[in-house]
Amino acid sequence: MNLIETLRGAVGAANVLTEGDLSAWEQDWRKRERGKALAVVRPGSTAEVAAVVKACAAAGAAIVAQGGNTGLVGGSTPDGSGTQVLMSLQRMNKVRGIDAANLTMTVEAGCVLQTLQETAERQGLLFPLSLAAEGSCTIGGNLGTNAGGTQVVRYGNARELCLGLEVVTAQGEVWEGLSGLRKDNTGYDLRDLFIGSEGTLGIITAATMKLYPLPAASLTAWAAVPSLEAAVTLLGLAHKGLGAGLTGFEVMGQFALELVAKHFPQLRVPLYQQTPYCVLLENSDHESQEHARAQFERLLENALEDGCVTDAVVAENIAQAHQLWHVRESIPLAQAEEGLNIKHDISIPVSRIPQFCTEADALLRQAIPGVRLVNFGHLGDGNLHYNVQAPEGGDMAAFLRDCEPQVNTIVYDAVSRYDGSISAEHGVGTLKREKLEKHKSPVALALMRSIKQSLDPHNLLNPGRVLKA
Amino acid sequence: MNLIETLRGAVGAANVLTEGDLSAWEQDWRKRERGKALAVVRPGSTAEVAAVVKACAAAGAAIVAQGGNTGLVGGSTPDGSGTQVLMSLQRMNKVRGIDAANLTMTVEAGCVLQTLQETAERQGLLFPLSLAAEGSCTIGGNLGTNAGGTQVVRYGNARELCLGLEVVTAQGEVWEGLSGLRKDNTGYDLRDLFIGSEGTLGIITAATMKLYPLPAASLTAWAAVPSLEAAVTLLGLAHKGLGAGLTGFEVMGQFALELVAKHFPQLRVPLYQQTPYCVLLENSDHESQEHARAQFERLLENALEDGCVTDAVVAENIAQAHQLWHVRESIPLAQAEEGLNIKHDISIPVSRIPQFCTEADALLRQAIPGVRLVNFGHLGDGNLHYNVQAPEGGDMAAFLRDCEPQVNTIVYDAVSRYDGSISAEHGVGTLKREKLEKHKSPVALALMRSIKQSLDPHNLLNPGRVLKA
Repeated sequence: MNLIETLRGAVGAANVLTEGDLSAWEQDWRKRERGKALAVVRPGSTAEVAAVVKACAAAGAAIVAQGGNTGLVGGSTPDGSGTQVLMSLQRMNKVRGIDAANLTMTVEAGCVLQTLQETAERQGLLFPLSLAAEGSCTIGGNLGTNAGGTQVVRYGNARELCLGLEVVTAQGEVWEGLSGLRKDNTGYDLRDLFIGSEGTLGIITAATMKLYPLPAASLTAWAAVPSLEAAVTLLGLAHKGLGAGLTGFEVMGQFALELVAKHFPQLRVPLYQQTPYCVLLENSDHESQEHARAQFERLLENALEDGCVTDAVVAENIAQAHQLWHVRESIPLAQAEEGLNIKHDISIPVSRIPQFCTEADALLRQAIPGVRLVNFGHLGDGNLHYNVQAPEGGDMAAFLRDCEPQVNTIVYDAVSRYDGSISAEHGVGTLKREKLEKHKSPVALALMRSIKQSLDPHNLLNPGRVLKA
Repeated sequence: MNLIETLRGAVGAANVLTEGDLSAWEQDWRKRERGKALAVVRPGSTAEVAAVVKACAAAGAAIVAQGGNTGLVGGSTPDGSGTQVLMSLQRMNKVRGIDAANLTMTVEAGCVLQTLQETAERQGLLFPLSLAAEGSCTIGGNLGTNAGGTQVVRYGNARELCLGLEVVTAQGEVWEGLSGLRKDNTGYDLRDLFIGSEGTLGIITAATMKLYPLPAASLTAWAAVPSLEAAVTLLGLAHKGLGAGLTGFEVMGQFALELVAKHFPQLRVPLYQQTPYCVLLENSDHESQEHARAQFERLLENALEDGCVTDAVVAENIAQAHQLWHVRESIPLAQAEEGLNIKHDISIPVSRIPQFCTEADALLRQAIPGVRLVNFGHLGDGNLHYNVQAPEGGDMAAFLRDCEPQVNTIVYDAVSRYDGSISAEHGVGTLKREKLEKHKSPVALALMRSIKQSLDPHNLLNPGRVLKA
């Protein structure tokens, strides 16, 4: 019996797609690469996932696991060979249960992130993972890539929000590691090894995630800061003044905000004309709206007095808060409207970010006169989307073609000098695989290869992602 | 040249001990086992650690890494063979640096936990890991065992407090994974794999740890609760009412407190006579003493109204707060005064703890008439020290000898039925190695063995701990 027939037997013929338009699964989100799958297989249960893995292992076929296919590094689409099986987890989308007293929720890998947020909220609880793709990305993908987003400063990445996993191994065994436990020291941390391994060590089929009480109020403020140094000072004041109430701290460079104002004139972008950077702060409070506002106002008064903030507004209501976040979230779209650009997702120790930017800005401007820097990101976590746009009026396609390697080298070499990471929250996939060989320590790479070899000796799971094949 | 001579060359003759009283390194903290080392080696730098590992690997000698030797599961002392090299990390005790703006501190493995707490505090910062042995345990040991303690409900275990590691591998290579980054998705999570591996996968030589702003105030309260169900209800109210201010939530059974009152009559144990359980709560506040008190009082009023608390006191000053914590921390000592007992360190989903205790209490009382249960622990994390004391006036040595296997079986089988863990915060070591074979999933054990085999193929690092040799 050939593999396709075995797969049909395992998951039903209707869930093995080999014909028609498969671009929803074969084309990556950024449309950088189009692959070709042997088949798209859509298992509906953990047992079916295990059966698919066993069948593929027996046939020697590679498996690419996929959630919402919103990844940004080419990690969840098949290569062009037509030999890889694309396993979509989207049919596995049940919330298996909520344990409110334990503050946990057990969900299948294919649950959409927004569904988790909404399910928790209906119980008066918060699931804090939040990112731009939340309407279509899945929790399995979030865990596979250890997704970050906007609330990491308070709640951590996807990894920190997970207590346990159910995983199908490369051998088609099921590890039943779902756990509602906050303390469990019975051996090696398999959970965190699978999280962030981008489908190369096992296939996550379900997870138990942490929940939090829903805050009583959430307020948003927008501050003009005279420099990145000042933004870092403001972050320190905010940590001290708001404590764990600080749930968001985003920085936005003037040019990034100019692009929003230019391409989305209907959006009101506050305070950006006279200042090199603005900061968006979020304060979540378990007491009340009034308390949150008093806290915020005290913080901003201190900051104005200190000089690290030159002007600020606090949103008066939820609509205004949404509007401020909408400006922040429109930066990537505005950038796309402006034309092709070179994206980075880097992290640097917060204390060294100002100096890093001074140095990298200067090196880029020297190498490419007129280059425009779209600098914004989650400063609270030291994570910048330090993007590079062609000089005004230049040929953007030529810029991308001719300058991308040089720009990446300048940026990533600077990142390494500042003890940073070339992939803060997006992962490695195929996009940064070669760069990893250069910027990750050889000892770490050797350890990673040993682990990959031991758990997936035939290199069947997402081969060539993270590590070279 | 023989191994001892090579080791002397690597770390200096004065730091290779083979004679005299080596019990400080060879005898475990609980004095359950006394081992015999080939030598006690005390490297003073990462390069020396690497040289020792290379020398031992070349000679085929096993290495047992040790910090403060305060572990409770026989994981850090040599076996009785006289062939294992005991590597003490205590000389590596430098604080390499504090980065206040990044809220991180980089320290060597041999730094004593209390030193970290005090070093942070001098900078107006908090290092929140806190546990009974903090005056002598080291951060390397804390990370090797993923230590827990009293503030996990807010700040997580040692693992959650660590951003990066420096590790010497089984091959004597140095992985320079120190990092001040809160986001870094460049490959597998080696950090969390080494943390909690109890020295069986690599030797942690340094770590970068998270810091927090020092709270403006910290208040302690003591509440009488009519049942464990009520304690769980109180925990829910505390999460909602105090938010991230809830930094401690300890439960103590009446008999545990009776033992404290009996053996330490100078301590005033509040409210315990009329109630089956008491709860100790800690509220850390970034605003002020007054705010913390108002929050606490509101919470306790709600709880009294709800009925989940029947009486409560809030400490009036720091001395009173210390006194309340002192009562809690005296339970293990009072228990030792009462005589030998069988200790457990279990975790259960918080929501299921009341039912678990009802069931396990009944099974134990049925199996051993008159048995006395000393139940206390970190309820906020679902972690109980569910200890079993001989019937009053019974022969305690005989009880331990005759009943320990039966008691462990009853408790651990119940733990498994309730999806709990047989080691919440102490680890596995040699003590729970056999139990692990029974209570951990075979798939997880197979994955662990694969990883051990791949990173330490000659089984040189702490052989026979966690996994059977």
